[in-house]
Amino acid sequence: MTTSRAFPILIDGEWRPSRGSETFRALDPETGGALAGEYPVSPWSDIAEAVAAGKRDAPALAALGPDPVAGFLEGLAVRIEERKPDLVAAARLETALPAEPRLGSVELPRTLDQLRKAAEACRGRSWCRATIDTKADIRSMYGPLGGPVVIMGPSNFPYAYNAVGGGDFASALAAGNPVIAKSHPGHPTTTRILAEAAREALAAAGLPRASVQLLYHLAPEDGLRLVADRDIGATAFTGGRPSGLALKKAADGAGRPIYLELSSANPVFVLPGALDERPEAIAAELFRSCTLASGQMCTKPGLAVIPDGPTARRFIEAVREAFEGSEPMVLLGPKVRDGLREAAARLAAEGAERVAGGREPSGSGTRSYPALFRMSGARFLEDPSAFQIESFGTLSVLVVAKDAHEMRAIAASLDGHLTGAIYSRSDGGDDLDYEAIEPVLRTKVGRLLNDKMPTGVAVSPAMNHGGPYPATGHPGFTAVGFPAAIVRFAALRCYDHVRADRLPPELRDANPTGTMWRLIDGEWTQLSI
Amino acid sequence: MTTSRAFPILIDGEWRPSRGSETFRALDPETGGALAGEYPVSPWSDIAEAVAAGKRDAPALAALGPDPVAGFLEGLAVRIEERKPDLVAAARLETALPAEPRLGSVELPRTLDQLRKAAEACRGRSWCRATIDTKADIRSMYGPLGGPVVIMGPSNFPYAYNAVGGGDFASALAAGNPVIAKSHPGHPTTTRILAEAAREALAAAGLPRASVQLLYHLAPEDGLRLVADRDIGATAFTGGRPSGLALKKAADGAGRPIYLELSSANPVFVLPGALDERPEAIAAELFRSCTLASGQMCTKPGLAVIPDGPTARRFIEAVREAFEGSEPMVLLGPKVRDGLREAAARLAAEGAERVAGGREPSGSGTRSYPALFRMSGARFLEDPSAFQIESFGTLSVLVVAKDAHEMRAIAASLDGHLTGAIYSRSDGGDDLDYEAIEPVLRTKVGRLLNDKMPTGVAVSPAMNHGGPYPATGHPGFTAVGFPAAIVRFAALRCYDHVRADRLPPELRDANPTGTMWRLIDGEWTQLSI
Repeated sequence: MTTSRAFPILIDGEWRPSRGSETFRALDPETGGALAGEYPVSPWSDIAEAVAAGKRDAPALAALGPDPVAGFLEGLAVRIEERKPDLVAAARLETALPAEPRLGSVELPRTLDQLRKAAEACRGRSWCRATIDTKADIRSMYGPLGGPVVIMGPSNFPYAYNAVGGGDFASALAAGNPVIAKSHPGHPTTTRILAEAAREALAAAGLPRASVQLLYHLAPEDGLRLVADRDIGATAFTGGRPSGLALKKAADGAGRPIYLELSSANPVFVLPGALDERPEAIAAELFRSCTLASGQMCTKPGLAVIPDGPTARRFIEAVREAFEGSEPMVLLGPKVRDGLREAAARLAAEGAERVAGGREPSGSGTRSYPALFRMSGARFLEDPSAFQIESFGTLSVLVVAKDAHEMRAIAASLDGHLTGAIYSRSDGGDDLDYEAIEPVLRTKVGRLLNDKMPTGVAVSPAMNHGGPYPATGHPGFTAVGFPAAIVRFAALRCYDHVRADRLPPELRDANPTGTMWRLIDGEWTQLSI
Repeated sequence: MTTSRAFPILIDGEWRPSRGSETFRALDPETGGALAGEYPVSPWSDIAEAVAAGKRDAPALAALGPDPVAGFLEGLAVRIEERKPDLVAAARLETALPAEPRLGSVELPRTLDQLRKAAEACRGRSWCRATIDTKADIRSMYGPLGGPVVIMGPSNFPYAYNAVGGGDFASALAAGNPVIAKSHPGHPTTTRILAEAAREALAAAGLPRASVQLLYHLAPEDGLRLVADRDIGATAFTGGRPSGLALKKAADGAGRPIYLELSSANPVFVLPGALDERPEAIAAELFRSCTLASGQMCTKPGLAVIPDGPTARRFIEAVREAFEGSEPMVLLGPKVRDGLREAAARLAAEGAERVAGGREPSGSGTRSYPALFRMSGARFLEDPSAFQIESFGTLSVLVVAKDAHEMRAIAASLDGHLTGAIYSRSDGGDDLDYEAIEPVLRTKVGRLLNDKMPTGVAVSPAMNHGGPYPATGHPGFTAVGFPAAIVRFAALRCYDHVRADRLPPELRDANPTGTMWRLIDGEWTQLSI
């Protein structure tokens, strides 16, 4: 078989060769050339085995309860830390993201923090929202889904959102579900190292064999089949809109839950007073946020809306200078570069004026100069859906509105986005405009910011990394922040008149940990009944 | 216009004629004849006006805050109580459900209780799960969706699940959303009286005009268009599976949230020891639960699974006698009767043996004798999806399994259902079988019961009236029980670095009510910061 030289996949506790013959290699974004490791594209037979093993082990994992799972997540964090040099080297090669500070000192520690916070939430059990009605003798809590959760990770965070070890992975396991991870094909080696660590941690924690399985790549039609399989519990997908919507359609049609984090233009509104007060400072913040990680952040501001006037020209000039002064930026791969070129061509065709960027960088690899466009608010309002596109990578659009009234109309024309920011004058001079725009923008975004750019998603219980469609598939769920992110992968389980000794520990009279929060007869309490 | 004699619809605060010409009349289930009131089938132009008005008023309703909405819900309860004689007379005629105790002393008081509990939850604000991270200065809560919620009510609960005044209605408003109600065409007069009460209560509470609107009937294609409209916030539908899945497909495709309560066979497992211990008692309970409200309950046990043996024969004989001894039961309408006939024919064709029922009742109206079928566990397992159908009305299937091991296999073969009950011997003699079957059944149902039939859904904070697909569209949500049912109609709103005076009251340092529960830095508390 031609896959004999390809790396094995992790199925039912064993690293074993894929049954397929197709393989792929990740590309080096710095050079555009193929990297060394050869990885398999799994045919349906691989996938079917993973689903069957995951389904088989789901009850055993659920029966173990939270402590071994929390131990696993913590053990994985330790092992990831031990393999940090390998992980940074691999991700550096596969993504071209800077080894320092980004990979080694920002994203990797964040990933460990996520795993430890998920472990803490899992062990603490408050995430399951145990609710007890002592009078009616009805008790309920969130519990595992009964089948494996499929995680499909994105290209832009090789650790923190990785299908192995990332936030969705930690959440799905903390809820007590096995995981079938599908690596992003852009960083298979990074994912393999994470999965090696996971397999060791799994054995050490005594979790069932199929609690974590790994596939590297699937044919698109097999992905659609997988998310619609009746034996899976749910899917989490982070990535581009076309793939995400195709998966959503397949999963929806079969009634399988799917959580999507798709795309977002993250509009930033700079109110007149703020623009007058600190145009250069905001311009510098905008540039930094737009170009962080070469603009390859879900929360990159792709759209900045400002009121016209003399300061607008100063602001635009400051942003333009920053963009023009930038070196070309290395992108994650040719797909990102092609997407950017396409978005730029579409914007130009729609009448947006190019303010910066557009040169083709010399040299090899997938590089791009940061690109800046501008257009009038009137033009934007003629066809809002054409201009609030996510342009993953270093491209942003400045919309120059006639006045704050038109800025409000632009907010009203928006689709759903992950974030929306409003910059306003520090002395309250913009308050009337803020009051007009905020209620409109509020229903369009998951996270609203003041005087702050949206890049940087804190792992906080109060975070919402989510938002209305088409930013995600449902406005009520967040992909970041514990305990809320865990609940996505759980079913509400009600016990009506169930005998006391048959209740799960979380719903018995005695508080199982002494500190777990439960809603008993309408009061949140850590006490036993 | 031919609709001049038809009742008006409630649009933007006014009762005004439909713009369409098509009308309908409800049928009297007792006689099969048409009832007096003529009601309009709304064309798209009516619907578009309702959507536009609801969308326009959504921000104003959200800005009012919870107290006026709570006042409205309580005022509606008072007005419904005042109109009780009219409501009981209308629902009695339209549904043939008994005026007493069902309509007047059970369902109507339950509806008032729901409205008052929703009002209490709304005023109390704890439902919105305010979460504050003081260190990161990030705060989040659930808030309104930004557009009207479409409610489509079922036939079988003319008050408690009515699109006006029922549980979904109360939940959507408590979350701060306007409602566009679509009456079930089986009881338009009942719905009209409820909407008259709602309009009065609305004016008294000072809510925006379009906070409650009413349409009586829509063409199916307009229903699909409505649930996919980008200006609506979400939809709640309770009813049959084919209509529900068509609406789900339309809503999913447009990324609009939809909550479904579709159908359920509500399996009851009687373990060997329980069957030996009290066969006649369980048979009597099963008969009562199967025939309550002529079997027209979402939670009616349509499937009972028992182990074979001498007691099985006694049990079946007792159930048979009860079914055979029953008078024919009046159904809600010809659609229910035809559905039952179809289900019976299909079961017979698939090899199930008819044990009771099957005679055609004499006289007019939509009556039916309760029907009972039996089949072997082996036959069931050959084609589980053919036999776990919801048969809305008085039809149930007894599955006689070889032993407890086969009962477990039957549980494993189930789709998602609202409820699942296990009867076991009172002295613990069935515990081993319980431990084998419960984990399997647990992932298939929303509510698990012991020694209790599933009909009767308590309005409790711990209730789950929901379950895995295809019982509903998502396993994490309940349609009954406050505060959980409210959260369905809300979006997660995060505030990152937002100035203190711009935060909603629920997220400011001071607790806005003094009693609201908030999750502050990981602790549930009623204290201020």
